[in-house]
Amino acid sequence: MSQSDSFSRIRVVLSRPAHPGNIGAAARALKTMGLSRLYLVRPKRFVDPQARALSSSALDVLAVAVVCDSLDEALEGTTLSIAVSARPRIIGPAPLEARSAAAEAIARAQTDEVAFVFGNETTGLSNEEVMKCNRLTAIPSHPDYTSLNLAAAVQVITYECRMAQLGPLPPTEQTAEFATHEDVEQFFAHLERSLYASGFLHPKYPRRLMERLRRLYSRLALEKQEVSILRGMLTAWENPRPPRSRPTHADAQKGSESGRK
Amino acid sequence: MSQSDSFSRIRVVLSRPAHPGNIGAAARALKTMGLSRLYLVRPKRFVDPQARALSSSALDVLAVAVVCDSLDEALEGTTLSIAVSARPRIIGPAPLEARSAAAEAIARAQTDEVAFVFGNETTGLSNEEVMKCNRLTAIPSHPDYTSLNLAAAVQVITYECRMAQLGPLPPTEQTAEFATHEDVEQFFAHLERSLYASGFLHPKYPRRLMERLRRLYSRLALEKQEVSILRGMLTAWENPRPPRSRPTHADAQKGSESGRK
Repeated sequence: MSQSDSFSRIRVVLSRPAHPGNIGAAARALKTMGLSRLYLVRPKRFVDPQARALSSSALDVLAVAVVCDSLDEALEGTTLSIAVSARPRIIGPAPLEARSAAAEAIARAQTDEVAFVFGNETTGLSNEEVMKCNRLTAIPSHPDYTSLNLAAAVQVITYECRMAQLGPLPPTEQTAEFATHEDVEQFFAHLERSLYASGFLHPKYPRRLMERLRRLYSRLALEKQEVSILRGMLTAWENPRPPRSRPTHADAQKGSESGRK
Repeated sequence: MSQSDSFSRIRVVLSRPAHPGNIGAAARALKTMGLSRLYLVRPKRFVDPQARALSSSALDVLAVAVVCDSLDEALEGTTLSIAVSARPRIIGPAPLEARSAAAEAIARAQTDEVAFVFGNETTGLSNEEVMKCNRLTAIPSHPDYTSLNLAAAVQVITYECRMAQLGPLPPTEQTAEFATHEDVEQFFAHLERSLYASGFLHPKYPRRLMERLRRLYSRLALEKQEVSILRGMLTAWENPRPPRSRPTHADAQKGSESGRK
């Protein structure tokens, strides 16, 4: 597989960008590093002359930019999504160095869809947005002044992607199919319902339980089949049927939406 | 010698910058990476409100920026000067990778003055300017589109300086307590019991389920607290106690049993 194939599977997602100039400058950053897929979640203004001006000659990137209504929509089909944020988080996926994140992205993009997610210029990424991603990375800025310009952050990350792409590629040993963003989100929704039903997750005292569980399972790079098994387990706990006949996956899946009986 | 001493000996030289906005954005880039010394050779406009605006909060860097009449003046006192240029040159010093250039800069700056030199936005560095430097480096952009924005190029180079200064990655800091082998084994035993009880794991047809689940959870480097949460979840599924305050499917069906107080 050629290396440029990896690049065709990497998207850069800007969540709620406020300044069209930054969208243009980000498009230019992508193009200088050989990337081309820009996703915009609820941009304040787009298309805009300022975006075109600051894109320099990267109008082709802007022309095919995908505008989305939600981060979920922008992450559809990805099996690896990496939140870029300088802000320390008490909870969430364990942070990676930008360089390691890029290496992981390039390796995964040999077969799967990958996203880097950048937040709004002023407010950055919300905790909810970070929790939707399965990795967190930070550009190691000076602790006294971490405020990278949005397009500058995109430039550094895409530069690291290009460096990782140019470098020696690690052999991929993964033959199984990774779970997509939607698969994993559906698992978390199922887990939450199931924990409410069991009483372990109390609506009044959630104890950040779901955040902890997201942090735990997001470290895994879950495979599609593993998500099926986990959801089958949840369904079985919801509707226990002590063994008499052989339970099948089909039984397990059928039960998943029906709740306790 | 402390590492920050190196940074005090590195200057970033912009030769003939045309747009004040780029000067401001470059100042911001320096500051995010912990650098502070900006030299401007015959800037078209400086000081300028646009430079201040785009510097974000890096006004302190702009305030001490040194304006020079010539590149020679800007390079005074340096023993290593590195021209940053994407354009291939027939003549001049042998080109270095940006990453190697940064490593060399940091090493030299432990004792000596070092400069990175960036050219004009449109025309780049002239051959004469490149010849005044003793190294040439390029940011490895895509061959079809090498046009990095000036401030973006400064961001990448200063980022590489910071990465070189930080040195080899320290082992990731894990503050939480890892689960011991026994903790994890007890979790697997609990999981297995619970799956038998639910009927999902059939004694006669185990389908290598426990092997798959071991493979899944073993990838995690589980923390002690996480094992507690996982086991708490199992216990809750084994003995569900749905919460009163939020009606579940089960409550709805039970209906009259729960009553009101």
